[in-house]
Amino acid sequence: MTNAAQIIPVILSGGSGTRLWPLSTTQKPKQFHRLIDDNTMFQQTCLRVSPQVDGRFGSPVVICNARHEDYVIEQLEEASITTGTVITEPTGRNSAPAIAIASLHAQATDPEAILLILPSDHAIPDPQQFRDSIFHGIAAAQRDFIVTLGIRPTGPETGYGYINAGERLDAHAAKVKRFVEKPDRETAEGYLAAGDYLWNAGMFLFKASAMLAALKDHAPDLLAQAQVAYAAAKPKGRHVRLPLDQFSKCRSISIDYAVMEKAANVAVVPVDFAWSDLGSWGSIWEQSPRDGENNSLHGAAVASDSRNNLIFAEGIPVGVIGVEGLVVVATPNGVLVVPRDRTEEVRKIVDALLPNN
Amino acid sequence: MTNAAQIIPVILSGGSGTRLWPLSTTQKPKQFHRLIDDNTMFQQTCLRVSPQVDGRFGSPVVICNARHEDYVIEQLEEASITTGTVITEPTGRNSAPAIAIASLHAQATDPEAILLILPSDHAIPDPQQFRDSIFHGIAAAQRDFIVTLGIRPTGPETGYGYINAGERLDAHAAKVKRFVEKPDRETAEGYLAAGDYLWNAGMFLFKASAMLAALKDHAPDLLAQAQVAYAAAKPKGRHVRLPLDQFSKCRSISIDYAVMEKAANVAVVPVDFAWSDLGSWGSIWEQSPRDGENNSLHGAAVASDSRNNLIFAEGIPVGVIGVEGLVVVATPNGVLVVPRDRTEEVRKIVDALLPNN
Repeated sequence: MTNAAQIIPVILSGGSGTRLWPLSTTQKPKQFHRLIDDNTMFQQTCLRVSPQVDGRFGSPVVICNARHEDYVIEQLEEASITTGTVITEPTGRNSAPAIAIASLHAQATDPEAILLILPSDHAIPDPQQFRDSIFHGIAAAQRDFIVTLGIRPTGPETGYGYINAGERLDAHAAKVKRFVEKPDRETAEGYLAAGDYLWNAGMFLFKASAMLAALKDHAPDLLAQAQVAYAAAKPKGRHVRLPLDQFSKCRSISIDYAVMEKAANVAVVPVDFAWSDLGSWGSIWEQSPRDGENNSLHGAAVASDSRNNLIFAEGIPVGVIGVEGLVVVATPNGVLVVPRDRTEEVRKIVDALLPNN
Repeated sequence: MTNAAQIIPVILSGGSGTRLWPLSTTQKPKQFHRLIDDNTMFQQTCLRVSPQVDGRFGSPVVICNARHEDYVIEQLEEASITTGTVITEPTGRNSAPAIAIASLHAQATDPEAILLILPSDHAIPDPQQFRDSIFHGIAAAQRDFIVTLGIRPTGPETGYGYINAGERLDAHAAKVKRFVEKPDRETAEGYLAAGDYLWNAGMFLFKASAMLAALKDHAPDLLAQAQVAYAAAKPKGRHVRLPLDQFSKCRSISIDYAVMEKAANVAVVPVDFAWSDLGSWGSIWEQSPRDGENNSLHGAAVASDSRNNLIFAEGIPVGVIGVEGLVVVATPNGVLVVPRDRTEEVRKIVDALLPNN
């Protein structure tokens, strides 16, 4: 165990977040918007693990779609994060190719480097507790485990995958017995009662060498494709731009399917910090500050005789009268009106309104 | 009685319709929008009484705010109405100055001309029945009565003023006993039961000479001011542009207060045609075609699992899920969400969102 081992945050910023239409679009996905406070979700993710906050974190590696490179650069600068690497994908290929390439990139400088994979669109109100949890996983990662953070469930959520924890590895980590898909309500209640099921938040901690070995065992084709794509990229300053010809040949698959569900050396650190994936407007209302009428108002929004609403006005004024429990989102791209408890269904109308999205 | 007497439609187009925000604005009020069908309210008003439809109508006189002159010209041309006069007011002064000036303008060519005053923002689904009703008022107008059309009430409406009809003048017209302000519910029910109360729709028929005589009797200051303003206007082609210096001195007052409630020679023709003043989004929903779910959808609007809504999308797409009985209006100027039965309250939030409106 090297005390000097740095954690390299790898920020995955490839999602498109269509359930947050009309704010989130393929042109400017949700992670680049100010949803809750003055920083975007992407900036919050970077700042939570910045070297200025804790010297054990190295400069970040950001992986994003090429069309969002300008947002990434602009928002990193705005957050005073001036070091690190930006890897751009010419097209989306899910998480496994991105993680393979980040591992290859880290290995080039230090095969023992520990990578911390973070989605860029989560809300974590207590960043210190979050960081403490990460450090709880280091020991297992240094023993060549691929470590996931497992959020202790606060309810029988049906919107998340679950991790079934097995035998203890150390004071903080346990081996993973199995990963399970999003359950139905009854199954989720069973998981909650059992006590050894945790939410899969898509946050991982591992040595570059451990991930590359696991890829070699369980997805050798993918590893080979990623090696070709990474070798073909010509790094320029802080930029690594993956070329379309090679990268588009990578198999599109999530890291869960490609590696986590197959490898034996997978561990989980149960964590207790408050967390939301901000996957729907309903969850954004839950995470947002609210006024005396329990309304969360963003931008030029006026609510008269209205309660329990999220009114999100970006670039266009919104007025509501006499409504309750609604989400109203307006941007120059479009307008959404839906009850707060049905915001998971947004994709339906996005497909109808924007057939080519 | 001269058979050759023409009716000169005078289209009053000065309203601003803030209850129809965000579509209707002071820049482009409701009468210039396509609310129900392919013609704007202003075009429908002109076409209903065009000389092409019935030779007894002469070319129209349109009175509008100077800032809307371009809309008027453009929409008249679009409706193939190429003759007539456009009088522009440099500032709003309510209906009495406008009607005084229209009467002066008509008198200049023919003092016996019969003027038909029409607001430009009403929905009248059966134009032939409407025209028949107008002709029923001609005899009384030729006997120097100022004739109003009184809509037979279909319910105890509290949003309209009422006209109490008195003794019969001829087969169609009766003398007016009195005008009454918008009543409360109980009073309106009494009017409905009494049977001799009619809605005041702001539509009048009179000889120019009769109106000018009434103005001389009941509002001599106003008549004098209007004469000065009209004399100062320099007609140019079909345009009469009232100059600010003189017109702004006209007293701002409605024709009801200035003349109708005071003059003795006021008659009413009870009429039965379907009519709505389209004063609120609720009334627009009532007048609009609807789909199988009883939704009225305008523009790029998509409704999923939703019933009894008006979704009006102009220049921006709107998607709604799981809502009922709502009005959702979106334009690049703003977004409104309000239950259908509360659309009378829209002004509240317009004042809050646009304090300088």
